[in-house]
Amino acid sequence: MSPRTRIAILGSTGSVGVQALDLISRFPDRFEVVALAARRNAAILAGQVEQFRPRLAVLADTTGFPEWASRCAALGVEGAAGEEGLQKVAAHPEADRVICAIVGGAGLRPTLGAIRAGKTVALANKETLVMAGSLMLQEARRSNASLLPVDSEHCALHQCLRGERTDEVRRLILTASGGPFRLSTLREMEEAGPEQALRHPTWEMGPKISVDSATLMNKGLEVIEAHWLFGIEPERIEVLLHPQSLVHSMVEMQDGSVICQMGTPDMRLPILYALTYPDRWVSPLPALDLAAAPALEFSAPDPVRFPCLSLAYRALEAGGTATTALNAANEIAVEAFLARRARFLDIPRVIEKVLEKHAPQPADSLPPILEADREARRLAEEILMKGAAA
Amino acid sequence: MSPRTRIAILGSTGSVGVQALDLISRFPDRFEVVALAARRNAAILAGQVEQFRPRLAVLADTTGFPEWASRCAALGVEGAAGEEGLQKVAAHPEADRVICAIVGGAGLRPTLGAIRAGKTVALANKETLVMAGSLMLQEARRSNASLLPVDSEHCALHQCLRGERTDEVRRLILTASGGPFRLSTLREMEEAGPEQALRHPTWEMGPKISVDSATLMNKGLEVIEAHWLFGIEPERIEVLLHPQSLVHSMVEMQDGSVICQMGTPDMRLPILYALTYPDRWVSPLPALDLAAAPALEFSAPDPVRFPCLSLAYRALEAGGTATTALNAANEIAVEAFLARRARFLDIPRVIEKVLEKHAPQPADSLPPILEADREARRLAEEILMKGAAA
Repeated sequence: MSPRTRIAILGSTGSVGVQALDLISRFPDRFEVVALAARRNAAILAGQVEQFRPRLAVLADTTGFPEWASRCAALGVEGAAGEEGLQKVAAHPEADRVICAIVGGAGLRPTLGAIRAGKTVALANKETLVMAGSLMLQEARRSNASLLPVDSEHCALHQCLRGERTDEVRRLILTASGGPFRLSTLREMEEAGPEQALRHPTWEMGPKISVDSATLMNKGLEVIEAHWLFGIEPERIEVLLHPQSLVHSMVEMQDGSVICQMGTPDMRLPILYALTYPDRWVSPLPALDLAAAPALEFSAPDPVRFPCLSLAYRALEAGGTATTALNAANEIAVEAFLARRARFLDIPRVIEKVLEKHAPQPADSLPPILEADREARRLAEEILMKGAAA
Repeated sequence: MSPRTRIAILGSTGSVGVQALDLISRFPDRFEVVALAARRNAAILAGQVEQFRPRLAVLADTTGFPEWASRCAALGVEGAAGEEGLQKVAAHPEADRVICAIVGGAGLRPTLGAIRAGKTVALANKETLVMAGSLMLQEARRSNASLLPVDSEHCALHQCLRGERTDEVRRLILTASGGPFRLSTLREMEEAGPEQALRHPTWEMGPKISVDSATLMNKGLEVIEAHWLFGIEPERIEVLLHPQSLVHSMVEMQDGSVICQMGTPDMRLPILYALTYPDRWVSPLPALDLAAAPALEFSAPDPVRFPCLSLAYRALEAGGTATTALNAANEIAVEAFLARRARFLDIPRVIEKVLEKHAPQPADSLPPILEADREARRLAEEILMKGAAA
């Protein structure tokens, strides 16, 4: 009997955190939860603490702390709060693997903490590599941390690259569902509101990521992530639309072979992969039945209707803090779109203007990254105030 | 500069042999041909000898030997003939890899010779594993030979299994084009002649293998090969029809992930793979353009119209010499069909009757295997004489 894998989760009450705990609960003699952290949902976190009895439970939001501390004490669990608490979860000495699933820029410091502590990091925070890929990789090399991606595309690439040499890769091919506007005209997209953009065809997701799917910025951010995770130059990373979302991504090797990974669209598969790699456990998830599946289609994305994809490549090629600025501008523009302060096609317009004004700095420490993030947000707001299309 | 890989080819004038030499000629500073053997096509073999200047060139057919020997002598190459000559090619001390591409039962002894000599064997002879899988594996373990499959399906499985553990495999899924009768009715198949059966939709192949594709026996033989090559039980090997022939096969892992390999349908890809594994070389072959490809469809084969597939499973489960008998009966029945001495659906009928009468023997040495082969052929002829459908 091998010892149980000890897990810490940053962001345990979010979508990835909840699905991870669902999986963990199905393997009680193979996983053990040692630390949990959530932003502010004390009620859900308390339920998780009761069920999994970690050593440490952290609320990032310090306002409810005294009450949280006593609740934890009653359960015999250490309670903590704030950034300091998140860092304790990230670097918990008993954790073998840390799931980094805090959404947005707030996940940056805790993820860096887990990497600096040399952990095996199951990375579900997209922003980490987009904002600070160079820094994260440099710190991971230093601490000998390993990064395992928790999203279906990068998990697919990771699987396709098992037993392969990176220097023999010709192209990485990320698949994209194409989102709700795959077949729409430019005019329809110009007029689309949040209700149209949030209608994602295959995956159920939060509003920010649903809009990113509709603009294809989601895929642009994934191109940037893939670059850092697998060390492949941007010109060797491509995107193909695949509306059935069963092929999660592919790798073309230099001999012409294309290796791809397929599976039912269920986030628990990449989560389980990141928690068990290099092993593969018998999964409680439904198997893919290809004989019953629709035909698999692939097509090239239209750069005219989906300019966000080219903007992501442009930022990646500019280097340094340019991808930080891209991500920040996108967040502000999507927020404005969801609040009906901007139209759908204003999103790429705002981002393009921010990138034009942004002078990329080296991104090898946190201060210039956080400064680029702040400055790009300010710029994006300014552009929105003036009217993005002006 | 690494030393050149030294290649011997058994069956150099056949389809696989010629394609292998075409590839080898494109990498003159990385490959060297040390020995060639052909059945009886002295003219083509002589041309190959002139171009590649091996140490040894063998004609299996001994009738033209004196002339062949003097032709070789004139080129400064050792000439030989007959079974003894084939064995010298198979075990050539200077060969690093031996391509075994002699078609049919005639390839059995030379392949066994290459395996016993501990070579890295690029195996393009289907019959070897179908007739004598157990023996071949036992000898390969003893001599430390390795077997690399040269056909698109098993090469695909081999690639999908790179970096994977066999005990974590849930299923191997072999893809089949479905052949010319994929959409035909039973009545149309009953009445089909060689001209219909030879119309293969995607691959250009000889008549025997084209008929095997039409009956799906080709896939049945591949299930048997996959069992021996990868050590997976028959109940974990499945077949899916995939008429576009771009996904060459797949592996479903126990966590639910399906890994597949795709590529243009070109035999040179698996040949190059077997000659260079574990490396992958930059290929001169056209890349797969999925955006321009038709949609990929998958469906389960119909056991009623394609009984040969179930017969192959039945023989594999019976074990020992049953698959030898299956292969022999199939060869005789296909020959009869091509000569218009049997109808298309007589092929499975003949095989089924042979399997019913065959008492499987352990298949761990050549004599019982060759005896089973002879006896099944005799039985099949007898059944055909009486009228297969009777």
